[in-house]
Amino acid sequence: MDFEAFFKSELDGLHEEGRYRVFADLERQRGQFPRATRYTENGSHDVTVWCSNDYLGMGQNQAVVEAMKSTIDHCGAGAGGTRNISGTNHYHVLLEQELADLHGKESALIFTSGYISNWATLGTLGQKIPGLIIFSDALNHASMIEGIRYAKCERVIWKHNDLKDLEAKLKAADPKAPKLIAFESVYSMDGDIAPINEICDLADRYGAMTYLDEVHAVGMYGPRGGGVAEREGIMDRLTIIEGTLGKAFGVMGGYITASTALCDFIRSFASGFIFTTALPPSLAAGAVASIRHLKTSQIERFAHQERVRRLRSLLDARGIPHMPNPSHIVPVMVGDAAKCKWISDILLDNFNIYVQPINYPTVPKKTERLRITPTPLHSDADIDHLVGALHQLWSRCALARAVA
Amino acid sequence: MDFEAFFKSELDGLHEEGRYRVFADLERQRGQFPRATRYTENGSHDVTVWCSNDYLGMGQNQAVVEAMKSTIDHCGAGAGGTRNISGTNHYHVLLEQELADLHGKESALIFTSGYISNWATLGTLGQKIPGLIIFSDALNHASMIEGIRYAKCERVIWKHNDLKDLEAKLKAADPKAPKLIAFESVYSMDGDIAPINEICDLADRYGAMTYLDEVHAVGMYGPRGGGVAEREGIMDRLTIIEGTLGKAFGVMGGYITASTALCDFIRSFASGFIFTTALPPSLAAGAVASIRHLKTSQIERFAHQERVRRLRSLLDARGIPHMPNPSHIVPVMVGDAAKCKWISDILLDNFNIYVQPINYPTVPKKTERLRITPTPLHSDADIDHLVGALHQLWSRCALARAVA
Repeated sequence: MDFEAFFKSELDGLHEEGRYRVFADLERQRGQFPRATRYTENGSHDVTVWCSNDYLGMGQNQAVVEAMKSTIDHCGAGAGGTRNISGTNHYHVLLEQELADLHGKESALIFTSGYISNWATLGTLGQKIPGLIIFSDALNHASMIEGIRYAKCERVIWKHNDLKDLEAKLKAADPKAPKLIAFESVYSMDGDIAPINEICDLADRYGAMTYLDEVHAVGMYGPRGGGVAEREGIMDRLTIIEGTLGKAFGVMGGYITASTALCDFIRSFASGFIFTTALPPSLAAGAVASIRHLKTSQIERFAHQERVRRLRSLLDARGIPHMPNPSHIVPVMVGDAAKCKWISDILLDNFNIYVQPINYPTVPKKTERLRITPTPLHSDADIDHLVGALHQLWSRCALARAVA
Repeated sequence: MDFEAFFKSELDGLHEEGRYRVFADLERQRGQFPRATRYTENGSHDVTVWCSNDYLGMGQNQAVVEAMKSTIDHCGAGAGGTRNISGTNHYHVLLEQELADLHGKESALIFTSGYISNWATLGTLGQKIPGLIIFSDALNHASMIEGIRYAKCERVIWKHNDLKDLEAKLKAADPKAPKLIAFESVYSMDGDIAPINEICDLADRYGAMTYLDEVHAVGMYGPRGGGVAEREGIMDRLTIIEGTLGKAFGVMGGYITASTALCDFIRSFASGFIFTTALPPSLAAGAVASIRHLKTSQIERFAHQERVRRLRSLLDARGIPHMPNPSHIVPVMVGDAAKCKWISDILLDNFNIYVQPINYPTVPKKTERLRITPTPLHSDADIDHLVGALHQLWSRCALARAVA
C-alpha cells in the first residue's frame, strides 16, 4: 500500500468538502487580552479574539500568573513522573482539595485534560461495573462519546435535553441493571442548558448515577463558580461533576469530583490516569489561584454576563441572527459552510477580528455558525467593531436578517 | 445497585492483593533536584528522589525555567482553546518545527501527553486505514495497547524484541494487507532496547510502516538527543517517531514526527487531538528551550551515563542484584511484592530515599523491583547513601545477593 498517497487523498477529501482546518497562528498578549498577534506568511498583525474559551480572561489574572511563576521558581518545570511514580506534587493535593470544596464533594481527581477526565472516567466505570448501561445525551462531547465506546458497555442515546425520551429509555431498560446518566450542563455549540434537576429526579426514580460535564460552566455560574448545578443549589444531587481547568479557570487540565470511594476507584483503575505524566506543579498552582479567586470575586461573572447581554442587544438592533440560549455562548447563525468560512476569513484579514467558523461535522449542515464568546475584557468599542463588521458582511453576503 | 459498596469492595480487593497505590506527596525543590520535600500526616521532611523520569534534571534547567516564566509574562497562563479554535499559539508552531528538526522529519504534531500521542495516533491509523494490521510488541506501553484497541483493527502481538517471531507473524499475514509495526526503543521497566534496524529491515521486506516510541530515549541518546534511532543513524528508516516532552525534556506533553501528510492526517482526524485544549504557551516555550539546549549540550548526557555506570558498579560491589541492560534504567530486583513495598517504605521513612516499588500488574509477579533512575544531579554521596541503605535492607530482608 502507498501510505503517503492514502493520507494525501484523505486530506484532499477534506479540502473538497471545505472541511480542511487551517489553524490561526496566534500569540496571546498578556495584559491586552482579548488582543493577540497573528502570524501569517507575510508578517504579523494584531487581532481581537472573539472565540476564546478563556471565558473570563483568567489566563492573564495577576494571581494566576504569579502563582505559576513562583511555583516554577520553587519547583521547576515539570512533575517528573506519573502521579504514582514521583509525579505527585503538593500542589496537586491542594488542587484536589480545592476542587472537592468547590463542588461540595468528598474528593476530586485531576487529569491532564478535560478530554481525558471524561474518557477515562466514563470508560472505566463502563468497563468495570458489570452490566452498566450508560444513558448518553445525543449531543454529548466527543470525549464522552469516546469514553463510552471505550467502555464497550451498553449505551443508550437519548434525545438532547429531552426528559420524556430519557424516561422512556430508562423505563424500557432492565430494572436490575446498574445505570448511569451522562450529560452536560452548558452545551458548547448551541449554548443551551440541561434540565439538571429534572434529570436527577429521573435518576432517583430509576436508581441511576448521574455524570454532569460542567466544562462550559465552572467558574462562570453559581455564587462561587461551581457551575450551573451550584447556581441551582443541586450539586449534591449529582454523583459525579466533571470540569476543566482550561476554560474559565484559564489554565489547563480536567477533573472529576465525587465521593472518596468513586474518585479512589478511578484513580486506581483508569489507564488514562495511571499511565501518564502528572500536570506540572505550576499549572496546579495556577489553577488553585484561579479557583480561589473566582470563589469570592463576582466582578468577572457580572461583567461577563453584562457583555453577553450587550453584544446580543446590538446584534438584535442590526438584525444579525443569533441562537437564543440562556448561557454566555452567542452562536451567530450563517447556515452555509462556504459563506461561514468566507465571513471568518474577511473578518480576520480586513477587520482584524478572529472568530473561527464552525462547520460540519462539529455542527449539523445548514447550521454553520460563528461561535462568539464575549469576555469581561471585550470593550464597548470591541463590540461595536464586531457588530459593525458583521452588519457589513451580512449585506455583502445577502444573508437573511433576523426579524425583531 | 449500591455503587458506593461496589467501589469500596473493588478497592478492598486491591488492598488485599497488596496493589493499592499510595502516592508520595512531594514538593520538588528547584536548584536542589533530586531533593524534594515530602509531606506526611506528621509534617514534612526532605527526601532524595531516585525514581523520577526527569532523567536529566532539565525540569530545573535555567533556560527552560526562564523560557516558561517569560512566556507566562508575555502570553499568560493557558492556551484558551483547542488548536483549531483560538488555541494555536506561536510557541506551538515553533515547537513542532523544533521537533521535526530533532528527528529529521518533515513535520511534527504535539499532543497534551505522550499517552494521548500514542493513543490518538495508533487509534486513528487503525480506524482509518482499511484493513490495517498492527503488529505490536508484547511489552508495549498501556497507551499504545489502548490506542490499538480503540482502533478496532486487526492486531498481532509479537514476542518482545523477538525478530523471528515478528517475521513469522508478518509472513503469516495477508501480503496485500497494509501493515504497521509498533514498538519502543527503550522499554521502561526492564530498560532493554529494541533491535530497531533489524525491525526496519523486516518492515521493508513486508511493506510495513514503523511506529517507534522513544519516550524513554529522547534527550538522552544520540548526538542531539534524538533518541536511540538517532544514535544508530537510522531515524529516516522510521515512518513515525513518537516522543514525550515530560521525561528527559523536563516539561509535559507528547508528540509524533513523520511526513507532512501523515502528521496532517492525524491532525485532521484524531479526536484526541482535535477536541482538547492546547498546551499552555509556557509549556511549549519551555520544551523548545529544553530541546534546543540538549541538541548542543553533551554535558547532561555524559554525566547521566557516568552516574548510571557508577551506581551499577557500587551495586555490584555489594552484590545487590540489578537487571543488566544497555540503558539508563536500573531495575533492582526484589522478586517479592510484600518485600518490595516494605523496602520502599523503610527507604522513605528511615533513609529519606524515595523509590516507588514496582509490583504486578506493571511487571510480572516474582519480578517485583525498585526501578532506579540516576540523574546527572545525583552526587557520589547520594549514590553511596542509596547503596548503603540497600545493603542494610538486603541483609535484614534475607534477600539473595547477586553472584559476581
